[in-house]
Order: sequence, then C-alpha cells, then structure tokens
Amino acid sequence: MGVGNNMVRVDAIEKVTGGAKYTADLEPKGLLVAKVVRSTIANGVVKSFDLEAALAVPGVVKIVTCFDVPDIQFPTPGHPWSVETAHQDIADRKLLNTRVRVYGDDIAAVIAEDEIAASRAARLVKVEYEEYEPMLTVEAAIAEGATVLHEEKPGNVIAHSSFVVGEGTYQEAVEGEDVVEIDHVYATQSVQHCHIETPISFAYMEKGRIVVTTSTQIPHIVRRVISQALGIPAGEIRVIKPYIGGGFGNKQDVLYEPLNAFLCTQVGGRGVRMEISREETLACTRVRHAIKCHVKAAVKKDGTLVARKFEAYSNQGGYASHAHAIVANTSNEFKQIYHDEKTLESDAYTVYTNIATGGAMRGYGIPQAAFAAECMADDLAVAVHMDPLEFRMKNCMPEGYVDPHTHVACNTYGLKECMEKGRNYIHWDEKRKEYENQTGPVRKGIGMAIFCYKTGVYPISLETASCRMVLNQDGSMQLQMGATEIGQGADTVFTQMAAETTGITEDKVHILSTQDTDITPFDTGAYASRQTYVSGMAVKKAGLIFKDRILDYAAYMLDKEKDTMDIQNNVVVDKESREKLLDMAELATTAFYSLDRSIHITAEATSHCKDNTFATGACFAEVEVDMPLGKVKVTNIVNVHDSGVLINPKLAEAQVHGGMSMGLGYALSEELLFDKSGRPLNDNLLDYKLPTSMDTPDLHVQFVELDDPTGPFGNKALGEPPAIPVAPAIRNAVLNATGVAVDSLPLDPQKLVAHFKAAELI
Amino acid sequence: MGVGNNMVRVDAIEKVTGGAKYTADLEPKGLLVAKVVRSTIANGVVKSFDLEAALAVPGVVKIVTCFDVPDIQFPTPGHPWSVETAHQDIADRKLLNTRVRVYGDDIAAVIAEDEIAASRAARLVKVEYEEYEPMLTVEAAIAEGATVLHEEKPGNVIAHSSFVVGEGTYQEAVEGEDVVEIDHVYATQSVQHCHIETPISFAYMEKGRIVVTTSTQIPHIVRRVISQALGIPAGEIRVIKPYIGGGFGNKQDVLYEPLNAFLCTQVGGRGVRMEISREETLACTRVRHAIKCHVKAAVKKDGTLVARKFEAYSNQGGYASHAHAIVANTSNEFKQIYHDEKTLESDAYTVYTNIATGGAMRGYGIPQAAFAAECMADDLAVAVHMDPLEFRMKNCMPEGYVDPHTHVACNTYGLKECMEKGRNYIHWDEKRKEYENQTGPVRKGIGMAIFCYKTGVYPISLETASCRMVLNQDGSMQLQMGATEIGQGADTVFTQMAAETTGITEDKVHILSTQDTDITPFDTGAYASRQTYVSGMAVKKAGLIFKDRILDYAAYMLDKEKDTMDIQNNVVVDKESREKLLDMAELATTAFYSLDRSIHITAEATSHCKDNTFATGACFAEVEVDMPLGKVKVTNIVNVHDSGVLINPKLAEAQVHGGMSMGLGYALSEELLFDKSGRPLNDNLLDYKLPTSMDTPDLHVQFVELDDPTGPFGNKALGEPPAIPVAPAIRNAVLNATGVAVDSLPLDPQKLVAHFKAAELI
Repeated sequence: MGVGNNMVRVDAIEKVTGGAKYTADLEPKGLLVAKVVRSTIANGVVKSFDLEAALAVPGVVKIVTCFDVPDIQFPTPGHPWSVETAHQDIADRKLLNTRVRVYGDDIAAVIAEDEIAASRAARLVKVEYEEYEPMLTVEAAIAEGATVLHEEKPGNVIAHSSFVVGEGTYQEAVEGEDVVEIDHVYATQSVQHCHIETPISFAYMEKGRIVVTTSTQIPHIVRRVISQALGIPAGEIRVIKPYIGGGFGNKQDVLYEPLNAFLCTQVGGRGVRMEISREETLACTRVRHAIKCHVKAAVKKDGTLVARKFEAYSNQGGYASHAHAIVANTSNEFKQIYHDEKTLESDAYTVYTNIATGGAMRGYGIPQAAFAAECMADDLAVAVHMDPLEFRMKNCMPEGYVDPHTHVACNTYGLKECMEKGRNYIHWDEKRKEYENQTGPVRKGIGMAIFCYKTGVYPISLETASCRMVLNQDGSMQLQMGATEIGQGADTVFTQMAAETTGITEDKVHILSTQDTDITPFDTGAYASRQTYVSGMAVKKAGLIFKDRILDYAAYMLDKEKDTMDIQNNVVVDKESREKLLDMAELATTAFYSLDRSIHITAEATSHCKDNTFATGACFAEVEVDMPLGKVKVTNIVNVHDSGVLINPKLAEAQVHGGMSMGLGYALSEELLFDKSGRPLNDNLLDYKLPTSMDTPDLHVQFVELDDPTGPFGNKALGEPPAIPVAPAIRNAVLNATGVAVDSLPLDPQKLVAHFKAAELI
Repeated sequence: MGVGNNMVRVDAIEKVTGGAKYTADLEPKGLLVAKVVRSTIANGVVKSFDLEAALAVPGVVKIVTCFDVPDIQFPTPGHPWSVETAHQDIADRKLLNTRVRVYGDDIAAVIAEDEIAASRAARLVKVEYEEYEPMLTVEAAIAEGATVLHEEKPGNVIAHSSFVVGEGTYQEAVEGEDVVEIDHVYATQSVQHCHIETPISFAYMEKGRIVVTTSTQIPHIVRRVISQALGIPAGEIRVIKPYIGGGFGNKQDVLYEPLNAFLCTQVGGRGVRMEISREETLACTRVRHAIKCHVKAAVKKDGTLVARKFEAYSNQGGYASHAHAIVANTSNEFKQIYHDEKTLESDAYTVYTNIATGGAMRGYGIPQAAFAAECMADDLAVAVHMDPLEFRMKNCMPEGYVDPHTHVACNTYGLKECMEKGRNYIHWDEKRKEYENQTGPVRKGIGMAIFCYKTGVYPISLETASCRMVLNQDGSMQLQMGATEIGQGADTVFTQMAAETTGITEDKVHILSTQDTDITPFDTGAYASRQTYVSGMAVKKAGLIFKDRILDYAAYMLDKEKDTMDIQNNVVVDKESREKLLDMAELATTAFYSLDRSIHITAEATSHCKDNTFATGACFAEVEVDMPLGKVKVTNIVNVHDSGVLINPKLAEAQVHGGMSMGLGYALSEELLFDKSGRPLNDNLLDYKLPTSMDTPDLHVQFVELDDPTGPFGNKALGEPPAIPVAPAIRNAVLNATGVAVDSLPLDPQKLVAHFKAAELI
C-alpha cells in the first residue's frame, strides 16, 4: 500500500475497455459544428471576404470572420497568470486574425448543423489578401527590411536574453590558453506532439455562463484565458476536462477553447463543437521550436572544459505562445549541465517567423539544449581523444550544484551514478573498445548523453496547487485534484499518495478524474513535470488535515486523545501498540448520522510550493548504421533516471518508455517540413514519420532512487526527462560508429547519405 | 441584495428556454433500455416465469427476474440513516419481489437495445402465480385470518402508537361534564403527486463503481439505499441529480435507482436507462396515504374544547416506505393544533394492504390531520352554534406552545394573526352573515381551516447539512449545496443567503444546481420543508468562514486588522466608515497568483441542526355550490402563512400558489381508485382528475412575517404548509353553504349529490 508500490492504474480497465469518457463521448445531443476557415497564405493581411457561396450551403447557421470578433489580444500559453505586467504572457492574437502570420491562420469560422456543411462552407469562403513575402527562418525574419509580424515587436525579435557565468568573454577566457576549440551550429527541427486525440471541445451557455468541455492539460488556465480573450469575468466561464488522449504540451496552450466559447455566444448559447483535424493539428496548433545553437567551446588537452560561448536562435513561428521561456530554458540547461573552468557566455533570441508556431512540448527547450550540449561534449571528447563518458564525468554538473541565477539546487544528486549504471548496463567500456577501427558499409557504435531537468517552474513562476478530500459513509474517500490526468498516470500516483498519507487503502480512495473549474480545487495543471512534486504536496497537506479530522472524530467516539491514535489499513489503531480500535466504516457512518455530533468530514488545502530540485539522467544507445542506405538501427538503448523516490515504479518505467519513443522519432525521422510559401508539406501521419512499434527497439529503463528532501515523498521530475537525452545519444552513437558528426536533427537517410558521401565513406 | 428581495430565480431563463438539463437531456449515447415486468395480481407469489417468447424479441439483451436478484431486503424511504437499529427504516422489499403485494409489483425486468423491444418483451413474459385474496382496506388487512403480507408483521399492522395528553381517558374526561359531543370518521383518499417528470434514471459502471443519474430529491440518500440494496459499499456508488421536474415527496423514496444500478451490473456495466411511465408512476410508485380518523370530541356550551379521542388508521399499501412516520405526524398535528382542557387520547395504526404504497407527499400526514381537526372544529362550532373562527381563536394552539413530547416550540407565533389577516382579507364576518338562511339549488358559503407545521425533522430524526464555497479569480464565488433544487427555488434562496452572509452580490454567486455525491457536500435533501431552515444554516455557517478567510487575505494585502473590515457589494470596506478599501476581484486575483502567498480560498461547513420551530397558517375559502350538479366552485380563496422572514417574497408566494393548487385537487377531484382486485382504475391523467389552470381560481396569498430566532435568517417552513389547509377550508365552506358536513375527500360530484340527496336538499 501507498507510495512505492506498483498499483495498477486506476483507469486501466476503463481505458482498455473503452469505458473511459473523453470529450467526444460527453457531447450532448444537437450540437452545432464549427470549422475554422484558414488562410492560404503565411504572411499578409485579410482585406475582405466573399461569403455568398459559403452561406448558401444548406445547414450553415452563421459565419464569423476576423472582422466580427472582439478587438482584444490575448495570450495562449498555459502559465499561471502573473500579477506583474512585466511577467505576463504576450497577448498577440485575437480570436480570429486579420493579420495573417502562419499558413492556415484562423481567419474565420463557419457554424453549421453538421460537419459536412461546415467543411463545405469553410472551403467556399473566398478571401482577398494583401500578401507579403513569407519569412520561414530566423535569418529572414531579422533581416534588414523584413516585414513586421507584430507591431509591438518591430524587429520580429520577441526577446533576447544573455548572461555570463564566470569572468569576461569567451574570447578572453581562451586567449593564451593551451586549448582545443570547436565551433559548431547544432540545429533542431520543428516536430509535433502527435497526441492521439486531436484538440476537441464543445461549448454552450447555461445560466448566462459559458461552459466549455475540452481536451486540455490546464482547465483552470483555459478558464482564465477564455475570460481574457472574450473580455468577460472568469466566474462566468466553466471549463470541464474529461479524460484526454495525450497532450505533451500542445494542450498546455489555450488554442481553440476561446474561439469555441465565443462561437457559442454567437448562436444564442447553443452548443457548438469544434474538433481540430490531424492536418490542422500538425500545421496550425503548436510545434517544438526549431532552435539553432551556435556553440564555441574550448577544452584543455586533459579534457577540462575551459569556456563556452552559446548563441541560440529560437524560431517562434507566427505567434508568441510560450515564446522566450523555451529558449531561456535551453540556455539554462546548457549552462547547468557542464561546468566551465572559466567562462560561459550565453545569448538567446526568440524570433517571430511565418512557420508553425512553437509552443510547449515535453522537455520545454531542454531536448534542444541537450542536443547542443551533448553533441558538443562528444565533439570535444573526439577533439582531445578522450572517452566521452570520462569527459562527462570530469566536466558535468557537480554534486551540490546550485544554479547561480535561479538558486535551484541539486538537493539529491544522482547524475554520476546514472552514468555508472548505464555504463555497466550497456557494457560501455567493452563496446567502445569493440567498435574501434571498423570498416565496411555497416558499422556499429555506442553513444551517450546526459541531462538535468528542474522540477516545476519555481522560482521563475508560481507553483500552487490544491486538493480536496471527502469522507464517504463507508469509510472510503473521494479525492479531488485540480491537477490533471493526461495519460501519464497522475490519478494513480495521487491515489497512492492519499493512501500513504491517510491510512485509507488505495482501493478505498476514489479519485475524480474529471476537472471542472466550478468545483475542482485550483491547480495550474499538467506541465513542467510538476504534478507529483507540486500537486503531490497538496495531497500530502490535505491528507494530513483530513487524517487529523478523522482522528479527532475517533477521539470523540472513543474518548481517547487524538494523538495517541493512527490510521492503518482503514482501521483506527493505537499509535504505539497498533492495536485495532475502530473501523473506518463505523467511524464514517457515525460521523454522518450521529444525533449528537454529525459532521461531514472533508479537508481542502493549498500548497504554495517555494522549492525546486534537479532531476538528472543519462541515455546510452547502441546503433548499427547502414551507410549506403543512410539507415540507423538502434540495437540497444537504456535511459537511466535520477528522479527521486518512485511513487509507482511500473508507471515510472512506462513514463520513460513513452519519452524514449518520442526521443527516437526526434532523433531519426520526425520533422515538419514547409515549402517556400510556408505551407506545411507533411501535415499528416503518412508523410510525417512518427515511429511506430515496428520502428522501436526494446526500451530499457534503470533508476537511481534518491530520497529528495523537498519532494513530498522524496520524488522529483520524471514526466518530461525521458524524452531529453535520446536524440543526442543516438547522434553520438552514429559518430562513434562512423566518425561522422551530424549536427542537425533528424538523422534521416537523406541527411546521413549526404554526410557519409561528404566524408567519402560511401 | 440579499435576504428579503425578489431576486429572479437563478434558473428562470434556463427553464423557460429549455436550456436547463434534466436527466433525459444528459443521457449518453448507446444506452440500453430497461422495462419493469409488473405483476397482474395484487396479492400472491410468483411461482415461475416462461421467458421464451420475451427472449425471442429481437433486441432483447437480458431478462432479470425476482429469482435472480440478491437476497437482500432494503428500505426505500428518504430518511437520514439511523445508527440505532430501532430507528432504522423498514427493509421489506427486494430489488424484484417474488412475494407480490401490489398490483403492478416489480417482478422482473427486461433489458433491451431500445424502448420498443423492451416493452414488447415485458408484455410477453409469462408468469405463473399463487394468488391470494386482495386486501384493499385496513379492515380487510387486520381481519382475522387475513393473509400475511410481510412475515415480519404477522398481523399486517406495521406499527401502533398511542399517547395521552392530560389525565385519564376521553370517557373519564367527559363524564359528568355539561358538554356537547360529536363522533365522526374523517377519511382522506389516496392521491398521487403527479410531478411533471416521471421517475427516470440511467446507470453505468465506471472504474468498477456504479454511476446513477436520477431525478431525485435526495441524491445522498439514494447512494446509501443503493448500497444497502445491492450489498456494496456506499463509496462504490455515485449518484448525480440534475434539474428535476418536481417530486413532492414521491422522489423522496428511493424507488427504481437500486434496480437500475443492479441492471447495469448485469450487462457488464453498460449504460441502462429506466423511465417509469405515467401509468406506472400513478399506480406503482407512491401515493399520499388514505387515512381514516375516528374523532370523538366534547365541547362546552361556551365553546371550550374539553377532550378528544383520536383513532387513525393509515392504509400503507404493499410496502412500508415511510410507514408509520406519516400517521404519527398526523396524530401529532391533531394534538398540537388544538388545546384540550382535559384530555386527548390518541391511537394511530399503520397497516399493510394491497393497494398502491403510501409514501411521502407534501405535508407528510398533516393534510390528513388538518382534514380531521378542521372538520372537527367546524362540526363542534356548529354543535354549539359558534362562529368557527371564534371557536378556533378560543381553542387553537396557544402562543408559547411547546409540544409535550418533542418539545418543539412556537418560537414565534403568528397563528392568530394569520386568522385575523384572513378574516379581514376575505371579509369573514360580513360573509358569514350574508350566507345565513340561503335557499335554492345554488348556495354560497365561506369556510376556513388552520394548521401548524414544524420545520424539518429534529428531534425525531437527524438534521444535518453541508455547504462549500469557492472563490473565483474574478472575486465571484461558486456555491455548492448538498441540498437540492426540486423546482421550489432552493438554489435562488441559497444564492440570496450566500450574498447576504458574504457581501458578494447575487449576480456573482454561481450556484451549482447539480448534486453529485462524489463531490457535493452532504445533505439529506429536499423534504420536510427543511432546506431554507436547516441547509440555510449551513450556507450561513460556511459563508461566515468564507468571509473571514477573504478578510484574512485582505488583512494581509492591506496590512490591516481583519476585524476592522467588512465586505459590501463586492468590495472590502472599512467596517466603521464603509470606505472602499479593496475590490474583491483584485483580492481574488492576488490570492490565486501571489508569489508570496498563493491560496485558493474556499470554505466548507456542516451544520448539525438541533432546533425546530412551528410554522402556522390558515386558509379561507369562499364557494358557490351547485347542489343538483354536485359542483363546488371556489370563488375566492386566500392562504395566510406565518413562515418567518421571507427570503424571497415572490418565490414564497409562488410556493403558496403551488400548494394551494395541490390542495384544490385534494379537496375536489383527485382520488386514485382501485377495482376489487386491487388494480388501479384511473392510472392516467385523463381519468385521474388533476386540476388544471382552467379549474383554478385566482389564488391569494398573505403573510405574517415574524423573525424566528432559530431560523438562519428568521425563516421557518413554507414548502409543504400551503397544501395543508385548503381541503378542509373548502369542506367547511360547503358546510357553511349547505349545512351538509361531508366527512371524506374528495368532494366530487357523485359524493356531493349523494349527500345532498340524503339531506333532502335536492
């Protein structure tokens, strides 16, 4: 019972039998259907619409255009709101946009009686544009004379942040030193989350309020953003989040809920559903930012890292969304994961362009950082003829590390132990030796990568979470979280935490999976791998109050001192002797129905978390590279994670599997491509190459379990980390196999063949 | 703002536009349909079924019979559970019954893919019975050799209670006194609630738990009864109550939810819907008990009531349901409403028979008591040639009355003021004079009746209620009640109470109308006119805590002492100067998003009510009696109520209108009839004569507003009282018009013609 056991997911049976209710399962009868009319240019202005043909389609109820929406700009990212203006998210879009910034921008919406009518009419809307040259790259967007995408940012640069760790400049640091230098541009691509359930919501009005049921990671934030977008008070909006089919950060943006909410107000409060297709999802929701990292690094002959210069350019796409927070995270991890003897100079830029908008995606800038830092590490190791693992042991984030800017500390430190564990698991030393001096077209290699990842967003932003517990008549309990189950198993670990804290066994902890902002305790939601850490503390806090209230009632019933008692396996026991005193069911029935003292025992608590800690880990990958085919086969791979105490080891392992699979696609096949007009070329799952089970090797997982003093149960982040180190580990394995350093993702056949040809290997 | 104002119902627009969601509106797709197979005898035993033809109907999924259900007897009435065995409700039925006690008893259920298949199959189920003589009257059921309906009650008498107020017997009291005596049997009929929405529910399983959405007054009790009926823990059951289309006590019985819950478990947890038709509702749910009251009373020449003997026989029908609680209430009100100089002897019996089962219905035994007491009052007044109003003034419940058994007191006393107010309103004295000495076939008359009604069920049973409040980011609040809106306007008055207590205006109090036992604070529900009194106290209690927490945050923000501040119209103000200090919206936003002190302000409180008080009132009715046609036309009618402070005068008036309309049907036209086999003769709204708007005169309402010290806002019961005095007032008006005392209800044409013939008036 409790924390540390492999409880079966609370929703396992529902999910495999189809019983679990998702948004589409909950649709009331008679919903209207809305379809977004999308721009067919990437950069320009809508001058006018011709709606005649569209309005003539039978079943069309209303067409709303960008000229009909409130003149309010609002922000979409799923952050806790900031009461300080300077820290508020960038409000740079309207419900529908007249100024078009991406191909497929939301310029109008058709509401119709059914899907077919809505789609037909959407296609028949004629638009006149003023069109500008699309700017697909950072370079194009910051070039002299580039069109301005958002008037608030005349140079298209959303933000530029810089810092120096150590003294002076990189150049000063290396001058006169006996060092080897490298100078690379490590570049990552746009990829998409590809959650199974595409964005879907439905909205209607009730008692003058707008009710939106939506597939989101962040129901309470959706409520706030709808309120901002429509200019109505938050209390007049109700957001309901059922089970969701994945999010991975794409549903940490408030994408179509505000528009859906607005549309229902345009048809007298009637219910309107809005489902975003796979094609729209790939091209018009959010992607992982393509970031170019220009890295210079200097290393002594003995492998000591002396100094680095880091310059990162994040391609934001058309709208700010999470904006600079991503590449700021990139530069932070680049800073944290290695120690420079002298200096690290860092600059990061986030730039508006006309490609698909970058947003939050599992890892939030860290996969890009890890690609840069870990390619660099191997390239430096090659440069000084050192084993890359030794290089990392020598230069990586040290035990006791404290970030000089955020002051987030390694309260527990498992990084080197992770490296050792992976080294042994994959037989690193033997394999590195074995793969020296290969010849022939097919070669084997082994590579690795490390990372660190902080847990939650404190102190950069607010961490706050609430939990409510209710005693049932049978001595079981209801558990209500503002935190959201998004497929990761949050409901299961919260159930275990509640059991651990209260002494009520898991089978008697009934967690309510659906969040409803009318009744659910507040929580900002699922992101930043924060929930077991931050929301878990709320469970613990509420659980202790709840248990105290139960024991207080036991004290009344038994005429004993409260603090001489405890609860264990649904029984009130003597704290010392553990002797059974009172069954919880009897206590609960009495508490409800006592004629002397009837009380409905509940507890509710907010945990305002002012702590953070680093999770770390490593990936070791072994590959077989068929050079003529440009094909990389991953033959063995292991992730080793230092994530604190595991609440549910089996679920933790499954979480790592999912992240590794995402990392494999990032490494080898996934990339959202655009033609020169900014139109997506592969916005479907046939052409966008997501790895399937047939592409995926056995995934191995190891843990280093350390009891973190700041975690509610010794735990730290695990949600995002697994996706981080896989791609650079594979890139480094290919380097080990072939001697070829590929500096951009993905390592797809075209690119590899070009590289091998250039290296005269084929 | 707050208490005492005529706020428009919070659900007014939803209800008139069809936006309000009732159970049938919430049905998910793909529900199976269940139909109950009903016995075609009233008394007997099911020996066997032949299901062949029924199972052959295409679309039939499963047929469950009385031989397939758990061997568990359970109670159905909506009372708080008692932890003392002696006070627990009678468990005398199973999910489906082998022993048949009423015509239309639940003996099997068909589950099919659709309504047509289910109904066809239900008709094709063949049943072999062992049949016994039906016992339709109390006399038949208690006769020597009557068949035993429930083996736990061998004489068919469920309970007999008796008490004496004063000394000795009635006979001793009157012996040697110079008194006039009367001896009447006042009899009331079976009537049905006729709520617009017939019982409907649907059930499915989720995460191993059963979820039942149902049209009920008492969701938390439904949960408990399902748990008892199926023998599973309460925590594994979730009950959801949407808007409901009336209940009037019929939905204070847990009628078909347990069967519906069980049936879904028989089809692998698939959703099953169960809608009870109007015909089934009239005959097979619950009725108001037909009670015969044998009254002897003795009065002095000066009108002083000396002694009474009361013997009541309640026809329970086939199942115990609320059982003896009803007639116990009848005898209590008979006791309370008049004062005997010497002695009141009271005996009450509740007897199983084979007619439709009696349950809770608006007034809960008091309309029957009022019919007996108020007929008696007029009959005594006639006997001593006294004005009936004067008789009542002389003998009615006195100011400061305290019930000798329950110790419930008149904390405020408006009874005589109600009589005075009604006397003036209807011009009693003038009319009584005017209607003396009439001749001819059409005569006019004026009559009256009084009543008292306690508020809630304390101390006979438990009164407990909880409320939760949640602050929204915009400074508005969510209000969650366990108490239920059943059409009476509870949500509106709770909203006013919350506004009154917290200083947040009603438009910013968002009440959640739907109760869901997984998340809604506990409350036993809507019955006994308890909610404004009992649950209202929970609103007040939670509201004070909530306000305190808000002011505590204001104190932190403003660095002021908490108790120097108050909240008024959504603004924190200085308690003394009423100067504006802080807007609630700003406070709320800060409380959510403060980086220093983030707290999600909520409050939850249980009010265990250990108080009660008497509401009283009077009805004055003026009639025109067409004797040859046996037709009574009510030409003027007024109810005057002493219900404490009115939370919402307009809603209070509407509540009285509804009750008066119910009283009119009770007086003049409604009666559920049975043939000699116990089969209902008029189980449809064509033959069962419910008054329509065309039968209803203008209804007048007056109030005597007194501030009750025990009510949360000075209020006392008003839900049920309006239905109580109407029928006897009309009976007494007919007496005044014609000199004919009709001692049974309804005063329908057949009965009146017979009476007028017997009196040789026609």
